Amino acid sequence: MIALKYKEMLSAKSVIREMSQYATERGKEIGYENVFDYSLGNPSVPAPQEFADTMIHMLQNEDPMKLHGYSPTMTIPSVRQKVADSLKERFKIPYKMEHIFMVSGAAAAIAHAARAVSVPGENIITFAPFFPEYRPYIESTGAELRIVPADTESFQINFEAFESMIDDRTAAILINTPNNPSGIVYSAETLQKLGDILRKKQEELGTDIFIISDEPYREIVFDGVEAPCVSKFYDNTLVCYSFSKSISVPGERIGYIAINPACKEAETIINMCGQISRGIGHNCPSSIIQLAVAEVLELTSDLNVYETNMNLIYNELMDLGFTCVRPGGTFYIFPKALEEDAVAFCKKAMKYDLILVPSDSFGVKGYFRMAYCIDTEKVKRSLVALRKFVETEYPNR
Amino acid sequence: MIALKYKEMLSAKSVIREMSQYATERGKEIGYENVFDYSLGNPSVPAPQEFADTMIHMLQNEDPMKLHGYSPTMTIPSVRQKVADSLKERFKIPYKMEHIFMVSGAAAAIAHAARAVSVPGENIITFAPFFPEYRPYIESTGAELRIVPADTESFQINFEAFESMIDDRTAAILINTPNNPSGIVYSAETLQKLGDILRKKQEELGTDIFIISDEPYREIVFDGVEAPCVSKFYDNTLVCYSFSKSISVPGERIGYIAINPACKEAETIINMCGQISRGIGHNCPSSIIQLAVAEVLELTSDLNVYETNMNLIYNELMDLGFTCVRPGGTFYIFPKALEEDAVAFCKKAMKYDLILVPSDSFGVKGYFRMAYCIDTEKVKRSLVALRKFVETEYPNR
Repeated sequence: MIALKYKEMLSAKSVIREMSQYATERGKEIGYENVFDYSLGNPSVPAPQEFADTMIHMLQNEDPMKLHGYSPTMTIPSVRQKVADSLKERFKIPYKMEHIFMVSGAAAAIAHAARAVSVPGENIITFAPFFPEYRPYIESTGAELRIVPADTESFQINFEAFESMIDDRTAAILINTPNNPSGIVYSAETLQKLGDILRKKQEELGTDIFIISDEPYREIVFDGVEAPCVSKFYDNTLVCYSFSKSISVPGERIGYIAINPACKEAETIINMCGQISRGIGHNCPSSIIQLAVAEVLELTSDLNVYETNMNLIYNELMDLGFTCVRPGGTFYIFPKALEEDAVAFCKKAMKYDLILVPSDSFGVKGYFRMAYCIDTEKVKRSLVALRKFVETEYPNR
Repeated sequence: MIALKYKEMLSAKSVIREMSQYATERGKEIGYENVFDYSLGNPSVPAPQEFADTMIHMLQNEDPMKLHGYSPTMTIPSVRQKVADSLKERFKIPYKMEHIFMVSGAAAAIAHAARAVSVPGENIITFAPFFPEYRPYIESTGAELRIVPADTESFQINFEAFESMIDDRTAAILINTPNNPSGIVYSAETLQKLGDILRKKQEELGTDIFIISDEPYREIVFDGVEAPCVSKFYDNTLVCYSFSKSISVPGERIGYIAINPACKEAETIINMCGQISRGIGHNCPSSIIQLAVAEVLELTSDLNVYETNMNLIYNELMDLGFTCVRPGGTFYIFPKALEEDAVAFCKKAMKYDLILVPSDSFGVKGYFRMAYCIDTEKVKRSLVALRKFVETEYPNR
C-alpha cells in the first residue's frame, strides 16, 4: 500500500522552502540580486581551499580501491581517531575513537542518536523556538516530540515549563545552541541549570535521560560571546555535529556523533549506531568526504561575514524600534514582528522583496527569522527596503 | 531508554563480517596474499579514471558554493535528468527526471522504496537465497519479511511456494537479479511468470503489489547471458540501483531509485521519497558524488576479471565433483557444500586458508558463497588449496 503518511506530507510543505521558492521565482522577474532573500540557511562563504586541495590530492595519489572502497560499518577508523584527537585537545574531554561515529550530516546524526537512546512510545523534549525538521526527525522514530514554550525574553530555557514536562517516559532532551532560529547561545548558567534538573529527575524517576546536543553552528559564535561546551555540564550527552556550516559543505552531508566518554554505556551506544544504520539505509557517509574532512578539522570558512551582517541588521532593527534579542552566533536573527500575525507581516514584507520567514513553524507565534548568510552588500541594500517597508506599512507604531 | 534491539543486534554479528575479520587476522599471521578470502563482495577493480578526473575538474573549476551546496530535497535536477535520459535510451522506457531519485547506495534505495510502498504490518516477500541485510532493511520499516524457499535446481523462483505466500497484506516483492549470493540471472520466462502472477493477485485481492528490484549487479553479466530488464515485465516496479559495483565506488554511497513511468502514482511515489528522507536522516547523497556519477553514466570499471575468475572457479568445482549452478553474472558463486552442515564445511576449509561463507544466513542450508572479486592470480593459487581441502577432507565422496 502506498504509504499515505508520506503522501500527505507532500501537501504540508515547508514554509521555509515555499518562501525560498517564491524568492527564486521573483528573482527570475526582477533579477535575483534585487530579491532580499533571508529564507534559507545556506552558507554564503566558500569552503576553505584546503578542502578541495585535499580531495584533489587524494584523487591524484591514493589507490582508488582504498579511496572509494567500503567504509567499515563503524565508519573509517583513522577519521574517527582524528576527530577524537581534535575534540580532546580542544575541549579537554578524554574522547577516544570509540566515542565517535561519522554520519551524513546533522539529520543523520539526530536520526541515529534519537534511535539509540529512545524507544517508541517514549518522549523527547525540545525547546521553542526550534528547527522545524526536528518534528519529522523525532516522530519518525516512534517517540513523541514535546515542545517547551519559548522564553521570549531571552530565548534561553523556560525552565518552569520544562520541568513539568519531564516524566518517566522522557528519553532525551534535544537542544540546539547556538540556536536556529533565534541565534542565541545558551549560557553556562542555562546549561548548568539544565544539567542539575536532569540529574535530579534521573534520580527521582530512576531513568536515564540523555541530552542530544545539535551543534552545527558551534563555530559561528560572535565577538565577546562564550559558547560553553554542553558535554561539560552533563555526562549523558551525545553531540550531533555537522560540517555544513563550519566549512560550508552542506551538500556533502558530513558530520559526526561524539558521545561524552562519561555517558552511560558510551561505547555501546556508539556501536549501536552502526546497527541503526542498517535499518535506515545510512551505511556511512561517502568515504572520500570522510577522509577529506579529517584533514581540515581545525579549519573553518571565513565566517566573519555573518557577524558583520548581524551587526548591520541588528542595529537597523533597533533603530526601527523592533524588539529583538541580539544573536550570539549562527547566521540567524529572530525579531518580533510588528503585528501579532507573523505570517501577515511576512506577506507584507514580500511587497518590498524582503523574504522573511514567519516564526510559526519554529513553534513561536509573532516573530520572524532572517537567515543573513548573504552578501553584505545585499544586506545593506535590503535595509533600505526594510526601512521603507516598516515606515509604509506600520507608520503609527 | 537505550534501545535494546540495537544493543542485541551487536551480539548477533554478521557471519560474513566475522569470516572477513578472521581472514584479516589470519592475513597478519601468514601474509594476506596467502589467505584466500572469498568472504566480502568488495569490488577488486578500480573505478574508471574518468570518475576521478571529473571530480578533480569540478574541484578545480566549479564555484565551491554550488559544488558543495545543499542538494534540493528531491536531489540534483541535472543529475536526475541525466540518469533518466541514460535509462530511457538504454531500456526504451520513457523515464523522465520525475521518475528518478538519487540515493546513498542500494541500502538507502531499499530503505526509501520499502517505506514508500508498504505500511507497518504489511509483508514484503523475497526469495531465498537472499542478501542477509534484507532482513534489517525490511523489518526496520515495520513490514514483515517473508522468505520463499529456494529453488535449488536453478536458483530461479520457486513459484509454487511463492504464490501461496501472497496475501492481501503483501505490499511488495523484493527481487535481486543478477543475484547475490547465487550469481544467477532471472530469465525472461521467470520475470514473465512473476509479472503474470502479480497481475493476477492484484486483481484477485484488489490490492497494489510492487516489485522492488535491487539491481547493483546489473552491469556484471557474463558472455552469452541475457539479463532482461525487470521493469519491462511489470508496471509497478521500482528499480533500486547502486554504482558501487559497476564503477567500483562502494564507499561513495551513490545510487538511485528509478520508478517505472507506468507504475501506479509513479511521480507521487518518487516525491514521497523526499519526505521519507526527512525521517530517516538521509537528506540526499553527497552533492559532488551525485554530480560526478552523472558524468560517467555510460562507463563501468573493467569488469571482465569477474568472468575470468568465475570460469576458473566453476571449472575447478565441476572437476572436483561439486554441484553448482553456473553464474550468469555478479561476482558470486554458490556451490553445494560437500556435507549437509555448511558451517562445518566452511570451518574445515579455513584450515586451508580458504575463507568461504556458509549459506545459512542467505536463507538456504547446505551451500556456500564465494565472492570472487579478487585477483585472478590469487584465484589460481586458491584452487590448489581447494583441491587439497576437498581431497583431504572428503576423500570418499
